Amino acid sequence: MADDPLTALVERLQGLCLERGIWLATAESCTGGLVAHLITGVPGSSGYFRGGVVSYSDDAKRLLLDVGEELLAAHGAVSAQVARAMAIGVRGRLGVELAVSVTGVAGPGGGSVAKPVGLTYIAVADDRGVDVRRFVWGADRAANKEASARAAIELLLARLEATRPGSAE
Amino acid sequence: MADDPLTALVERLQGLCLERGIWLATAESCTGGLVAHLITGVPGSSGYFRGGVVSYSDDAKRLLLDVGEELLAAHGAVSAQVARAMAIGVRGRLGVELAVSVTGVAGPGGGSVAKPVGLTYIAVADDRGVDVRRFVWGADRAANKEASARAAIELLLARLEATRPGSAE
Repeated sequence: MADDPLTALVERLQGLCLERGIWLATAESCTGGLVAHLITGVPGSSGYFRGGVVSYSDDAKRLLLDVGEELLAAHGAVSAQVARAMAIGVRGRLGVELAVSVTGVAGPGGGSVAKPVGLTYIAVADDRGVDVRRFVWGADRAANKEASARAAIELLLARLEATRPGSAE
Repeated sequence: MADDPLTALVERLQGLCLERGIWLATAESCTGGLVAHLITGVPGSSGYFRGGVVSYSDDAKRLLLDVGEELLAAHGAVSAQVARAMAIGVRGRLGVELAVSVTGVAGPGGGSVAKPVGLTYIAVADDRGVDVRRFVWGADRAANKEASARAAIELLLARLEATRPGSAE
């Protein structure tokens, strides 16, 4: 069993995905690979984690995730629209059932009045569609990366638990 | 200044790349995003880190890094040949000057006599070519990820320091 709460969440995620034969992929900007690092920290992750993209620049979002240049120009990299496109992009590129994306302003620089440091969008995509959530964390870069990574794992879990086989839908 | 030695190495890497206008990309299998996470832990990383791929499956290596199916079949995912192809692949896909790749058996499962747990290949690619190194770490998954990530950063630094502008070549 996991000795810390975040690893325990990842183990639950792994258990549910393996049980249902669901493959997962990630698309990360501000978390910079932390979500994938946490997922691959648990032995057996290669059984459900197909891979991910760390799309740290607009170029990477375009080239590896098919995020449209117009979308980036119209809404900016840190937006609900780009989070959505990133999740759809990595899901399609890697041909997985489930995908999560994270884009935000990790700080300490890069903030503005409209998009302050800590602003983060997380999207979860599966065959039922895409769900995007907005968070505003604090000013600390490391804490923001960790809070976003935790939220990404929790949203994946919530999505899987809401679609439990046998649940009344 | 960094409060731990690994962050200090990443800060040196960032300083050299920013100074010379060099863009970096990563392609990670066994480290699962840890190299990118360490790089993006330092504020200002978006000035030289274009992005990366966490190619945790053969599919991801093929689809996102153009690693040939024949190469994977002939040598296996954990091989000098595939490490080399991953570094070349991400360098080309993201159009960067410098790229690093990591592929290995993180453990605790997945080892064999020919390819024991801990076996890891790391490749660095730039315009002078590709350099591949082989390591054999221990049995612990977390320690293997960290040792590989550190070695990847160190090899990037060594490459940059060997090509110092003004050095006699």
